[in-house]
Amino acid sequence: MYVIVVYDVDVKRVARVHRFLRTHLHWRQNSVFEGEVSRAQLYEIKRTLEDIVENGDSVLIYELPDGRFNLHVIGVDKSPAGEII
Amino acid sequence: MYVIVVYDVDVKRVARVHRFLRTHLHWRQNSVFEGEVSRAQLYEIKRTLEDIVENGDSVLIYELPDGRFNLHVIGVDKSPAGEII
Repeated sequence: MYVIVVYDVDVKRVARVHRFLRTHLHWRQNSVFEGEVSRAQLYEIKRTLEDIVENGDSVLIYELPDGRFNLHVIGVDKSPAGEII
Repeated sequence: MYVIVVYDVDVKRVARVHRFLRTHLHWRQNSVFEGEVSRAQLYEIKRTLEDIVENGDSVLIYELPDGRFNLHVIGVDKSPAGEII
């Protein structure tokens, strides 16, 4: 399945969330990661994030079962692919 | 179709982007909006955002043609629906 992860966490935990997510997913924008994961990986991602987040933090994981989506980028494409262009 | 919009724009334009997006979509998290839109609305959203953004800004619009997704929330659900709970 494909997942899009968007986080809004206290600045004290941003680096930790970013470091963890990039071990599983591709960085897309400021606080957005995405990529193909197995069900076991999704479980691991959720479990680890639950350990990291504290009061007021929020992480959204959009799971797209069939992975079908079109991405429209307005302005800068900050992903590594975008940086190459 | 269903869209998820995530923006990363200069603080000078955050309020304007937020005000515009909430006229079409539901606010979900810090810089995340989502909702059902027509093709004409998506066109209008893209056109207006292109007018607003400036150098360095980035807005991603994930268009889900069939609108199928599961949302996993870790930590706080900041959407209005979440606030009611």
